[in-house]
Amino acid sequence: MTPAAPFVPDGSGNLRGEMSQPQAISLDEVAAIADEIQELIDAGEERSAWNLIRKLHPADMGSIIAGLPRTSRDAMIRIMSPETVAWMLRQMNPIQAGRVGRRLGSRLLSSVLSQIQPQQALATLRRLPVRRARRVTELLEQPLATEEILAHAPGTAGALMVSRFPTVMRDGRVEEARDSLKALDRQGPKSTHVLVTDDGGNLVGQISMIELALVEDATPVSAIATPVVATVTKDTPAEECARLERHYNLTQLSVIERGRLIGVILAESLLGATVEHDTRQMQQVANVAGEGVDAPLSSSIRIRLPWLTLNLATTFLAAATVSLFESTLAQVVVLAAFLPVVAGQGGIGGTQTLTLIVRAIALGELVGISARRLLTREAVLGLVHGVWLGVLVAAIAILWKQNVGLGIVLGLAMLGNMLIVGSVGAGVPLFLRRIGLDPAVASAVIVTTVTDVFGFLLFLGIASAAINLIR
Amino acid sequence: MTPAAPFVPDGSGNLRGEMSQPQAISLDEVAAIADEIQELIDAGEERSAWNLIRKLHPADMGSIIAGLPRTSRDAMIRIMSPETVAWMLRQMNPIQAGRVGRRLGSRLLSSVLSQIQPQQALATLRRLPVRRARRVTELLEQPLATEEILAHAPGTAGALMVSRFPTVMRDGRVEEARDSLKALDRQGPKSTHVLVTDDGGNLVGQISMIELALVEDATPVSAIATPVVATVTKDTPAEECARLERHYNLTQLSVIERGRLIGVILAESLLGATVEHDTRQMQQVANVAGEGVDAPLSSSIRIRLPWLTLNLATTFLAAATVSLFESTLAQVVVLAAFLPVVAGQGGIGGTQTLTLIVRAIALGELVGISARRLLTREAVLGLVHGVWLGVLVAAIAILWKQNVGLGIVLGLAMLGNMLIVGSVGAGVPLFLRRIGLDPAVASAVIVTTVTDVFGFLLFLGIASAAINLIR
Repeated sequence: MTPAAPFVPDGSGNLRGEMSQPQAISLDEVAAIADEIQELIDAGEERSAWNLIRKLHPADMGSIIAGLPRTSRDAMIRIMSPETVAWMLRQMNPIQAGRVGRRLGSRLLSSVLSQIQPQQALATLRRLPVRRARRVTELLEQPLATEEILAHAPGTAGALMVSRFPTVMRDGRVEEARDSLKALDRQGPKSTHVLVTDDGGNLVGQISMIELALVEDATPVSAIATPVVATVTKDTPAEECARLERHYNLTQLSVIERGRLIGVILAESLLGATVEHDTRQMQQVANVAGEGVDAPLSSSIRIRLPWLTLNLATTFLAAATVSLFESTLAQVVVLAAFLPVVAGQGGIGGTQTLTLIVRAIALGELVGISARRLLTREAVLGLVHGVWLGVLVAAIAILWKQNVGLGIVLGLAMLGNMLIVGSVGAGVPLFLRRIGLDPAVASAVIVTTVTDVFGFLLFLGIASAAINLIR
Repeated sequence: MTPAAPFVPDGSGNLRGEMSQPQAISLDEVAAIADEIQELIDAGEERSAWNLIRKLHPADMGSIIAGLPRTSRDAMIRIMSPETVAWMLRQMNPIQAGRVGRRLGSRLLSSVLSQIQPQQALATLRRLPVRRARRVTELLEQPLATEEILAHAPGTAGALMVSRFPTVMRDGRVEEARDSLKALDRQGPKSTHVLVTDDGGNLVGQISMIELALVEDATPVSAIATPVVATVTKDTPAEECARLERHYNLTQLSVIERGRLIGVILAESLLGATVEHDTRQMQQVANVAGEGVDAPLSSSIRIRLPWLTLNLATTFLAAATVSLFESTLAQVVVLAAFLPVVAGQGGIGGTQTLTLIVRAIALGELVGISARRLLTREAVLGLVHGVWLGVLVAAIAILWKQNVGLGIVLGLAMLGNMLIVGSVGAGVPLFLRRIGLDPAVASAVIVTTVTDVFGFLLFLGIASAAINLIR
């Protein structure tokens, strides 16, 4: 009943034959096929749906199955063999495999893994994020030798590394490097270098595959080995690993423990770490850091509600500021209409700057650029923006409300506000970094609160002082 | 006077000797050295500064020089040979090289390139973004054969690809693949595959370096070639190239024109495209998309001021909404204090959702997930959030202002607002994508405007209707 994997690798681990490899297709094509699959499942034709999906690349297969609603997804998984489900996950890159693994759920995954060979089950488990792999392991009926996979904290080099990779001794010959390469599963993740160690297992250099492809078996390893630019330990944050790859233009990173080589992080995992870091950072600036749009509702609530509640507290600071000026507002009620203008402009100005700074910090672009230089730059920008926006806002207010005093007060407040928001937008993330916090996490709430409170103080303060001009 | 490059590659293109390769250092160490360099230059000791910097990896060298203020930077560049400046740029990854190239300026770069060998000058020019390379070329006194580099639109596959890469004919033997590999500059960018073509130059397959390292010279190419999963054309957007790499777990992408192989995009460029896309997207959601924190002031103003001005127009929509209720506000002036609470919560709720959706669209995570499902999900989340925040805000208002009616009005407005903002936050980017626009660019302004206007209408509308309860 369970069909074989859509195409079967030959013994050597390669997919031979020109047309046996499914081709890449566009996102629109994937979406169109996903709709078709859903219609077939709705019509009870799961087998036809599978015949359509089995011709696709495993990455497309996975993203279509992950997008299906629960019952359809379960129907598709039932019709696939456990081997095929596991193979699909192993062929995907780590970000995608993680997402599909989350959608399939721990119970289903553990059932899949318990039906296939332990070696394959371990390789599959390795494609999942550490947290998910732990939950899947807990549900397994037959224990697997998973210690090595689960020992590492999520988001560290240890969780990203593979522990099987080609090596050769420094006093060996190229032939031995080739033997080490042949002994590995060639369907598995691909190294770009053979690593060179000494008698004690210490990393002393590397040989690139290109170099290896060009030399004779008898060549001594020491003649073609080159030094390694960067190593990390198993506790190095994934983000720092990704930075090293990018900054030094590396294709893989070695993980060492007291000099001894214990693992390798391949480019696919480093790319995954980069993309996940970028996603988290973008979400953090927007006060949300979740598992994504298809996470369970409860997890979305757990992630968003605390931020919404914290934000509520900060908006009450702004409310208290406005409340200080109730008597002024009672005299000139039209002032209330301009509160959103003051808050809105301050908010956007501050967010622009903080986003630039948070991103520049993450990309290591602030090296050698002093905080003073950045703050001065933002203050000058704020002056230019403030003069332009101040004149504009004054003109609009005068034309709209026929109140010259009001226009002048609003224009002055806008100028003052823009002067300060750039420096706040730059200063808050710089300060958070200085005290060792992640500037992406809390900057937005702090900056928005400061610009709101300061903007209202300035606007309503000037208005109170000049109340006779605007009444 | 001009010292040689800090370490000289031997004839074979490899850096031999264990300690000749500078090691990776942490960002903090780079920053500390940058400070030291600045102090030395300030003290007029440029030569000591150079002796410190020349021991570093070219990537660190570049980022320190890029971070120096203009006069110090020029002093450092004067002391380096043109060969070293060009070599440094060629060793960096494309994002970094682009940033350093921007900081050095077109005039200085064209002077550097005109003093080195044309072949090296071309290779260096290739590391720069197309726009910058064009400006540098215009300033060159001696023309270079740059047509091939400058022909491509920025942000396309053509601008990312290299046009020298190893190939072999499908009816050839492995020996010929090795010859093709040997003929390339081994200091240059690294391929992971040798590409297989037919008589007409059409791409028919590829051989991975690992495979090549393991077979005999006499092996026929057809015995080890495998099919290519994805190809692009020179006009394919960089973003789509990066998606193909990620999604299909590829290490390089072939560029074809009517079947013929014309170039290869390597992993380093695809990683660069991913990081630049993520940066742009994060900035766009914050209404800023600039060259970064070290761009000239004029360019920052050109980028930010239009958004600030557009945002001003939208805040006046919110102001006009509040203005509609001036008579209500005149009767119950305390309402004004709660305007920031309504706007602040609506803004954050909308931004949370829109950020999740924009990012999910970019990562291709919405395949098979219908807009209705997403909007329903957000509405349910909004209901949960709205009940919690509504009760909380009502309680605070009642305790603070001793006004039960006001608390109830505010709580109801909060509930209604949260119910709607999630759907707006999800609906706007989905709609923009449907009509073919980039959801990252305009979503934030639209969502904030809608949530502000709707929130004020709801809050002040209910207050007006229940004016006798709260007065």
